[in-house]
Amino acid sequence: MTDKIKKGDTYSYSFSYSQQQVDEFARVTGDNNPIHIDAKYAESSIFGRPIMHGFLGGSVFSMVFGTLFPGEGTIYMGQNMSFRKPMFVDMEYTAKFEVVEVDTEKNRAKIETKIIDKDGENVIIGDAFVQNKRIS
Amino acid sequence: MTDKIKKGDTYSYSFSYSQQQVDEFARVTGDNNPIHIDAKYAESSIFGRPIMHGFLGGSVFSMVFGTLFPGEGTIYMGQNMSFRKPMFVDMEYTAKFEVVEVDTEKNRAKIETKIIDKDGENVIIGDAFVQNKRIS
Repeated sequence: MTDKIKKGDTYSYSFSYSQQQVDEFARVTGDNNPIHIDAKYAESSIFGRPIMHGFLGGSVFSMVFGTLFPGEGTIYMGQNMSFRKPMFVDMEYTAKFEVVEVDTEKNRAKIETKIIDKDGENVIIGDAFVQNKRIS
Repeated sequence: MTDKIKKGDTYSYSFSYSQQQVDEFARVTGDNNPIHIDAKYAESSIFGRPIMHGFLGGSVFSMVFGTLFPGEGTIYMGQNMSFRKPMFVDMEYTAKFEVVEVDTEKNRAKIETKIIDKDGENVIIGDAFVQNKRIS
């Protein structure tokens, strides 16, 4: 658990997803776009194989904010995401965070968020707005 | 299935989520923030009861784009979301879409996205960028 969040702080979290998790995400959200869950269909797409839901990739931001950085007590106020490259299952990605603005009175921060692949290329880029007593 | 997407087109989709779906979303994304899944913990929060993950609410946008409007073949390029009000399980919400810009050469559109509650108040607002051959 981080003690205090201040401007310039960074955080990093590596992860990968399995096809089973993608299938479960499709089930719970109802997003059954075959590009995510149908290998045969995806083979004939421009991607050549199934891609993950962008929202499943991006939900790593939510997970980190709610449980790791800042962690418990976080109120998620907003998230912008640009999906730059497709994400695939069983590949390692890293979510990177940098606190770029802090409002110490309202305990709010703007945090740059991105997911990079193992070549360091941007997969998702954007920024988040969160509130937490630890931001001060 | 919509035939063609053009500027000014609108789409609407009503939905609700159960606590079981929230629990499954927490499991698959790892976002176990107790504000979403622990009724006792949530009772003592400013919300008084569990709130849904913002990303579970927002994933309705992804589901609609991938399966309904424009539907099959959609490539999701970006999504901005501002979480204005908490979302609760077993309540009906409506996702509303309006095509505000179209690039007919690149088959891309900017689509205003929002989720409103049954009083018509904004819960999530933002916009999306999607690509689909049907956008022309």
